[in-house]
Amino acid sequence: MPSKLLNILFVGDIVGDPGLSLLETILPSLIDKHEADFVIANGENSHEGKGINRSIIQRLYDLGVDVITGGNHSFAKWKVFDYMKEDANILRPMNYPKGNPGYGFGVYDLSDSDQKIGVLNLQGRTFMNAIDDPFSTADWVIERMKEETDIIFVDFHAEATAEKMALAWHLDGEISMFVGTHTHIPTNDARLLPNGTGYISDAGMTGSFDSVLGMDKNTSMKRFKLGTPHRYRLANGNNHLCAVLGKVDIETGKCKHIEPIIYPSFQSNSLEE
Amino acid sequence: MPSKLLNILFVGDIVGDPGLSLLETILPSLIDKHEADFVIANGENSHEGKGINRSIIQRLYDLGVDVITGGNHSFAKWKVFDYMKEDANILRPMNYPKGNPGYGFGVYDLSDSDQKIGVLNLQGRTFMNAIDDPFSTADWVIERMKEETDIIFVDFHAEATAEKMALAWHLDGEISMFVGTHTHIPTNDARLLPNGTGYISDAGMTGSFDSVLGMDKNTSMKRFKLGTPHRYRLANGNNHLCAVLGKVDIETGKCKHIEPIIYPSFQSNSLEE
Amino acid sequence: MPSKLLNILFVGDIVGDPGLSLLETILPSLIDKHEADFVIANGENSHEGKGINRSIIQRLYDLGVDVITGGNHSFAKWKVFDYMKEDANILRPMNYPKGNPGYGFGVYDLSDSDQKIGVLNLQGRTFMNAIDDPFSTADWVIERMKEETDIIFVDFHAEATAEKMALAWHLDGEISMFVGTHTHIPTNDARLLPNGTGYISDAGMTGSFDSVLGMDKNTSMKRFKLGTPHRYRLANGNNHLCAVLGKVDIETGKCKHIEPIIYPSFQSNSLEE
Amino acid sequence: MPSKLLNILFVGDIVGDPGLSLLETILPSLIDKHEADFVIANGENSHEGKGINRSIIQRLYDLGVDVITGGNHSFAKWKVFDYMKEDANILRPMNYPKGNPGYGFGVYDLSDSDQKIGVLNLQGRTFMNAIDDPFSTADWVIERMKEETDIIFVDFHAEATAEKMALAWHLDGEISMFVGTHTHIPTNDARLLPNGTGYISDAGMTGSFDSVLGMDKNTSMKRFKLGTPHRYRLANGNNHLCAVLGKVDIETGKCKHIEPIIYPSFQSNSLEE
Ligand SMILES: [Fe+2]
Ligand SMILES: [Fe+2]
Ligand SMILES: [Fe+2]
Ligand SMILES: [Fe+2]
Ligand SMILES: [Fe+2]
Ligand SMILES: [Fe+2]
Ligand SMILES: [Fe+2]
Ligand SMILES: [Fe+2]
Repeated sequence: MPSKLLNILFVGDIVGDPGLSLLETILPSLIDKHEADFVIANGENSHEGKGINRSIIQRLYDLGVDVITGGNHSFAKWKVFDYMKEDANILRPMNYPKGNPGYGFGVYDLSDSDQKIGVLNLQGRTFMNAIDDPFSTADWVIERMKEETDIIFVDFHAEATAEKMALAWHLDGEISMFVGTHTHIPTNDARLLPNGTGYISDAGMTGSFDSVLGMDKNTSMKRFKLGTPHRYRLANGNNHLCAVLGKVDIETGKCKHIEPIIYPSFQSNSLEE
Repeated sequence: MPSKLLNILFVGDIVGDPGLSLLETILPSLIDKHEADFVIANGENSHEGKGINRSIIQRLYDLGVDVITGGNHSFAKWKVFDYMKEDANILRPMNYPKGNPGYGFGVYDLSDSDQKIGVLNLQGRTFMNAIDDPFSTADWVIERMKEETDIIFVDFHAEATAEKMALAWHLDGEISMFVGTHTHIPTNDARLLPNGTGYISDAGMTGSFDSVLGMDKNTSMKRFKLGTPHRYRLANGNNHLCAVLGKVDIETGKCKHIEPIIYPSFQSNSLEE
Repeated sequence: MPSKLLNILFVGDIVGDPGLSLLETILPSLIDKHEADFVIANGENSHEGKGINRSIIQRLYDLGVDVITGGNHSFAKWKVFDYMKEDANILRPMNYPKGNPGYGFGVYDLSDSDQKIGVLNLQGRTFMNAIDDPFSTADWVIERMKEETDIIFVDFHAEATAEKMALAWHLDGEISMFVGTHTHIPTNDARLLPNGTGYISDAGMTGSFDSVLGMDKNTSMKRFKLGTPHRYRLANGNNHLCAVLGKVDIETGKCKHIEPIIYPSFQSNSLEE
Repeated sequence: MPSKLLNILFVGDIVGDPGLSLLETILPSLIDKHEADFVIANGENSHEGKGINRSIIQRLYDLGVDVITGGNHSFAKWKVFDYMKEDANILRPMNYPKGNPGYGFGVYDLSDSDQKIGVLNLQGRTFMNAIDDPFSTADWVIERMKEETDIIFVDFHAEATAEKMALAWHLDGEISMFVGTHTHIPTNDARLLPNGTGYISDAGMTGSFDSVLGMDKNTSMKRFKLGTPHRYRLANGNNHLCAVLGKVDIETGKCKHIEPIIYPSFQSNSLEE
C-alpha cells in the first residue's frame, strides 16, 4: 500500500491586482479540485508589481495560502519590513546577507497530519545581484530542516536556466520539490529527477499576459527600443494563473507527481479555424 | 473555406551528438506525423555543444531540415565561416554587426506552392553580448521580406523573457511565428498573439536532459559552487527533442495554431505509483 | 614656428551642489590660469547626483562652460528633455537610439579664431545599457564633422577600461582628444597616442570624495553589504575638481599636450609626518 | 620622534613577458631607490596574459618579490594549483569559495624587524563572477591577522570604482594600505583616508601600453566592433611598469604616505613642441 500523498500547490509570482483578483476567483476552487493540503504563493510582485504589503499578505492568507515566498523585489517596500520580522510565514530569499529583515525558510505544521513541511526560498546570482551562495546556503538550511521533516519545498528565484538546473541536481534526493520562479514565464519541463525531487524550471506568473512580465507592454518596448528609463506601469487583461501541483509521499518526502497548472489555458488555436 | 495551412516544424537548439542522434531517430516520423511542410532547426550547439561544422550541416539537410538557425555560438568554430558565406540556408543572428560572415535571414521557396517563406534569426542583448538592436533590425528585414511573402518565421535567440515578449509584441501581426531559443528549456506559453503571430518564449533544446543545458552536470555544479572555470563536456542520457509546430495560413501569413512538441515527454509521474 | 595651440579644458562629471559650488569657486581662475579657449563639462550628475536641469545649465554657462556633455543619467529628469531639443550646446551620448531627445554632437565656433571645434559624446556598452555601437557611430559623426573642422573632442562615457582603450585606438589620429568619463575616479594615464590623439581613460568627477562616487558612503556600503536597495543621498565634504587640460594644434587638430588637473590635490602625506 | 616607516612597494598586474622583462630591468633599482622593505606583485596575468606558472613565480621571487597576489585569472592554469597549495606566498582572492586551491591571505615576517605584515587578496563581485562577499571575508581575515600585526595590506581585485571605494571606507583605519587592481589602468587618486589607510583605486598594469590592457589592440577592437570571439594575443611595445609605494608606521600600522609610480612615465607632451 502506498503511503499517503501530500498535495502541494504552488502559485507563481502574483503580479499586482490583476493577479490578486484572478487568484481570488480561482484559488478556492483549485484547492478544492486538487485537494491541496498546503498552498505556497510567490508574492514578490503583488503590490503593484513590486514588493508586497500587509493588507495583501492578509488577503493571501484569507484565500488559503499557507506560506508566501519572495525574491529580488521582497525588499522593495520598507514599510513591510517590521512585519516580515514577526511573521514566520512570509519568506524572502534566505541567501540575502545577514542584516536584512525577515525569514528565508520555515518548518510548518501540516493539518490532518503529524508531519511537518519545510519551505526554503533562495535566489540565484547569475545575471542578478551578488548575494550569498545559494548552494551552500541550501545545504545548511536543509540539514537543519531534515531534523524535523523530509518534506521540503524549495522556491528558487533565479534568472538563468543553468543555475536552476545546477542547483536542482545538487539537491536532487534531498528535497521533495524544486520550483523555479522569477522569469514570469511557465516552463514545460515539469519532471521527476532520478532521486525523487519534483522539478520545474519556472512556475510562471499570475497576472496579465497582455503585457511584458505583467507590466505595461508599451513601456517595456520603449525601454528596449530607446535604451532609456520609462516608468513601469501595471498591465491588465488576458490574466492567467500559473501554478504547479506536486504530490509528495508523506513518509519519504519523495515526489510522486508534478504538473504545471495554467488557468485559463493559453489560446493556441484560432477561433475561426 | 479556410485557405491551406502551412505546417512549420521548428527544432530547438540541438546539443551535440546526443541531440543529433535523437533527431536522426525521430525527425522523419515527426515530419510525417505532423505533415511538416518546412523544417527549421537551431544548430548553434550541434558541434560538441558549441558551434556547427559542415558535416553536421549536411546531416541536418539529409534529415529534411530546410533552414538552420544559430545564436551566440554561431561564431565559435571559424572553419565553417567560409561555408556560411556560400550557403544561404544557414543563418546566424542578423543583428551581429556588419563584417561578420554569413546570412541573418533568407526567403525560401516552398515546395508544392508558389508561396515563399521568410526566416529571420535575431539575438537578444539583455544579459548577452552588445550587438545591434534586434528591434530596428527586425523592422528593416521584415519590410524587405514583405515584398516577397507574408509568411515569416523569427527565431529570437535571447536570455531574458522580457526581451522576448517585448520584441514579440513589437512584431505581432507582422510575422507568422515568433519562437524563442537559447535558454534550452521549453516554455509552456505557446499562444496566438492578438494580431495573428504564433508565440512561444522558448522551444527548448534537443539533447541530454541528464545535464545542465546539454552539458555535463557535474562540471556545471562545480562552476557554480567554486566560481572558477572548469572545462565543459557534453552530457548524454535522458535525451529529449524539443520542438514547436505552427500552422500558418498560406494566404495571409497568420498563425492558426501553435504547439510545443517534446519527445519523449518528460517523466512527471513515479512509475511505482 | 609652431602654430597656435587651442587650450581645451574638460571638467569631469559634476556631482550635485558640492560639485557645482566648488566649480563656481575654482573654474574662473582655472580658465584664467590655463588660458582655456574652450570649456566642456560633463553634467550628467549635476542635479542631486542624477541628471541635470535648466537652472544648472544656466549656472554652467555663466561660469564659462561652452558645451555640456552627458551620460547614462542624461535621461533621468524628463523635465529637461524639451530644452535639450532646443539647445545644441547640451549633449547626451550620440549612440542612444533614434527617438530619444537631444543632440549627441555639435560643431561650435571658436572665439578669436575662424576655426571650429567638434564635440562628440558617446557611451560604452560593456557593463552598461545596450544601445547603438559607439564605434560605427563615431565613424559616422567624425566623417561629418571633418567637413567643418579637424579639431574634435570626444567624451566617451564608459565603465570598462578595455572599451575605452579600444575606441581610442580606433580613433587615434582622427580626433584631437579622447577623454573618458563615468567611473568618477581620475586615471593617471594621460598620454599622446602615436597618431596625435590626446588620451586619458577617465577625467574623474567634480564633487565630494568623502563619498562613494559623490554619493553618501554609508548608503553605498549598505547596498554592497546587504545586497538590497537603499536610497542614494548626495555626499558633501572633501570636495575636489577633476579636469583635463589639452593643447591642440589649431591647424592640424593634433594634440600636443594633455594633463590631468585635480584641485585641490589629494592628501597623500600625513600632516604630522 | 616619529617611529620607523615600512616602505611597501606594490607592482600592478604583470602582463606576460613584456611585463616580466620590464620588471627584471627596473625592479631592483626601484627597490633600491625607494628603500622598499617589502615587495608585493600581482601576477594573475604573468603567464601570456592569463594565469601564472611555477617558473614565473621563481623569476618573481628572484627579483625580490615577497608575495604574489592574484585575481580572476588565478585559476586559469590548473598546472600551478598543486604548487599554490604548498606555497603560502602565492595568494589568490580569499573570497573564492571553499574548495578552491591556494591561500587568500598570509602573515609574513619582516626582515630587520620583529614586526610582521599581513597581506590579503580579495576580489569584487560587481560586473564579475559571483563569489563570496568581500566585505565579511575581509572582516573575518583582518580580525585574525590583527592578533599578529597591525600592518595589513589589501589588494582588492575589482572592476567597479564604487565597490573599491565602498570596501575601502569599510576598512579605513583597520588596514594600512588598500590598493585596487584589475582594470589595468593606474588611477590618480592616491590618498590617505581619514583613519589612516593609504588608498588608490587601481595600481595599473605592468606590460605593454601599445595595447588594450596588455593584449593585442587589433584583436580587442575586432571583438568590440564585431561582437564575436577572436583569440587574444599578447601585445608588446610601449611597456610601462605601474606600481604604488606606501610608507607605513611600523608601530601603529597607519599609512603616512602613498604615491603611484609609473616607469617610464607616459608621454604627455609632443616631442616637437
Ligand atoms: Fe517576479
Ligand atoms: Fe523576481
Ligand atoms: Fe543554445
Ligand atoms: Fe545560445
Ligand atoms: Fe557620472
Ligand atoms: Fe555615468
Ligand atoms: Fe589583470
Ligand atoms: Fe583581473
